[in-house]
Amino acid sequence: MGGHFADNLLEAIEQKGAPVCVGLDPVFERLPAELRRGDDRQARAAAIREFCLAVLEAVAPIVPAVKPQSACFEVYRQEGVAAYFDVVRSARRLGLLVVGDVKRGDIGSTAEAYAAGHLAGPEAPDAVTVSGYLGADGIRPFVDVCRREGKGLFVLVRTSNPSAGQVQDFAGPEGGRLYEHMARLVAEAGAGEGLLGRRGYSCVGAVVGATWPREARRLREIMPRQLFLVPGYGAQGATAADCAAAFKPDGTGALVNASRSVIYAFQQDRRSGTDWTDAVRQAAEDFARDLSQALGC
Amino acid sequence: MGGHFADNLLEAIEQKGAPVCVGLDPVFERLPAELRRGDDRQARAAAIREFCLAVLEAVAPIVPAVKPQSACFEVYRQEGVAAYFDVVRSARRLGLLVVGDVKRGDIGSTAEAYAAGHLAGPEAPDAVTVSGYLGADGIRPFVDVCRREGKGLFVLVRTSNPSAGQVQDFAGPEGGRLYEHMARLVAEAGAGEGLLGRRGYSCVGAVVGATWPREARRLREIMPRQLFLVPGYGAQGATAADCAAAFKPDGTGALVNASRSVIYAFQQDRRSGTDWTDAVRQAAEDFARDLSQALGC
Repeated sequence: MGGHFADNLLEAIEQKGAPVCVGLDPVFERLPAELRRGDDRQARAAAIREFCLAVLEAVAPIVPAVKPQSACFEVYRQEGVAAYFDVVRSARRLGLLVVGDVKRGDIGSTAEAYAAGHLAGPEAPDAVTVSGYLGADGIRPFVDVCRREGKGLFVLVRTSNPSAGQVQDFAGPEGGRLYEHMARLVAEAGAGEGLLGRRGYSCVGAVVGATWPREARRLREIMPRQLFLVPGYGAQGATAADCAAAFKPDGTGALVNASRSVIYAFQQDRRSGTDWTDAVRQAAEDFARDLSQALGC
Repeated sequence: MGGHFADNLLEAIEQKGAPVCVGLDPVFERLPAELRRGDDRQARAAAIREFCLAVLEAVAPIVPAVKPQSACFEVYRQEGVAAYFDVVRSARRLGLLVVGDVKRGDIGSTAEAYAAGHLAGPEAPDAVTVSGYLGADGIRPFVDVCRREGKGLFVLVRTSNPSAGQVQDFAGPEGGRLYEHMARLVAEAGAGEGLLGRRGYSCVGAVVGATWPREARRLREIMPRQLFLVPGYGAQGATAADCAAAFKPDGTGALVNASRSVIYAFQQDRRSGTDWTDAVRQAAEDFARDLSQALGC
C-alpha cells in the first residue's frame, strides 16, 4: 500500500464510514460444523484458515481493518503459521488494513528478528502490537520498519483485561500510574523524524482498552499524536459510548476492535436460522453502525 | 520427562556440574559458510536447523539446558517454526531441558492458546519465558499447564538490556520499583497448590538479568522460591561474579544463559583454526567452568 500507516488507516476509516476493526480469533471448537472436517493439526489449521477467509469476504465491504490473533494460529505450529500468513495476504488483497496481534516484546537483534518476521515486507501485516516492558530497546527495531516501509505499531499501554491494573496501575511517586509513564514513552518513541503522517498522527500507536474509559480520556491527553487500538467492545463488555473516550472531539484517533461478538455472531440466538456468513456480515454492520452513531459521524 | 520442572532442572544441574544454559539464537549470516547453502526462506530455515542440531550434539554432554530463541526461527515463518520444534524435539531426545524463549504475553483464551502451542505436550519445551505486563490473567493459563504437566515458566522481571530501567525501574510511592512489584506478583503466582517441587522451588520462575547484580540480590530476597533464568553473561558484558548475585548461598536457585559467546565461538580469534563444533564445545566447557568456579561448586 505504501505511504504512511496512520494516513492509510484514517483514509480507510473515512471510506468505510466507521473506525472499526474485526478481530480474527479463530477457535476450532467454535467454528461452524461444516468447516470442522478432521481433527489433527493439519485439518484444524485448514479449518481456521477457511473460516477466516470466509469472514474476510463477509466483512471487507464494511470495515477498514482486521486484526488476526497470532496465538490462535500458533497453536497449530507450522501449519497454523502458514494459515496466518495466508489470511494476512488475503486480507490485504481485499483492501483491508491488517493489524497482526502478536504482542511481541524483546530486545536488540531479537526484536529485529521479530520485526523482520512479523512486520517487514509486503507479505506481513500493515501493523503489529508489541509489549513495551523492556523499554525503548524493544520498540526501536519495529519503529525502524515503520519509518522505512510506511507500516505501524501499537504498543500495549492499558489493556482491556480484568487484571490489567495489577501491573499497569502501579503508582508512581506523585500518584502517576505506570500506564501513564508507558504512554509518555510511547509518545516519545513516536515523535522521531519521519514518523508523523500528513494528518498529524504518528505510525506508533497504543493499545488502550475500551473497558477503562476514565483511563482512556487521560491517555488521550498524554498521547495526542497516537492512534489508539481499542479492544474490549462487545464480548468483553464495553459499549460504543465507553469507546468514545479514546477518540478526539473530531471523531478521529482510534480504531475499535470487536472479535468474538462479530466472528461468532452465527451462534447468537437472535441470528439463528441465518447462514453463518450472513450472520457475521450483519454483526459487522451492526458494530459499524453502533460506533458511528456513538461518535456522531 | 514428567515430575516437576524445578526438581528436574536442579537434578540436571547437579548431574552436569554447572547451572548453565546455552542460548540458541541462530542468525543465518553468522553461520559457518559450509551451512549457508541457498538463500531463500526454506534454505535459511534448513541452515539454522542444521546449525542448532550440531550445537546441541556439541553441548549436550556439558550443559543441563538450552534456550532456543523463537524470534530467530519465526523470521522464516512456517519453515522456521517447523525448524524450532525440530530443535526442541532433538534437544529433549539428547536429555537436555529446553526453555523456549518466546516472551509471550496475552490474556484469557489467547494466553491459553499460547500455552497450548508453546508449552503443553511432549513436543513442546519444558519451560517458556512470558511477559507479565497484563497481570495475573496473562500468566494463569501457563501456570495451569505447569501444574498439570510438570513444566515451568520464567516471567520477565528485570531484563538484561540497557533500556530495561526505563519501565522496570519506575518508582512507586515508597521508593519501591516496578520490578520489585512484578517480583511479588511472580512469587504469589508461584505459590499456589501443587506448584512447589520437592526441593522447595516453584515451577514459576523469573527472568533476572546478570547485568544488574544489585537488583538481583534484592530480587533474591523477594522471590526465595523462584528459580532465576539469568541472561546477560558473555556477549552482553556480565561476568560470572555478577551472576553469583542471582544464587542462594547454597549455590542453587539460578540458571545462567549465554548465547552468542558460545554458539559463535568459532568466530573468536583465539579459537581460529579449530573445527567450528569443537570451538562451540570448548566455549561451553569454559562457560560451565567459569560459573562453577565463581559459585565455588
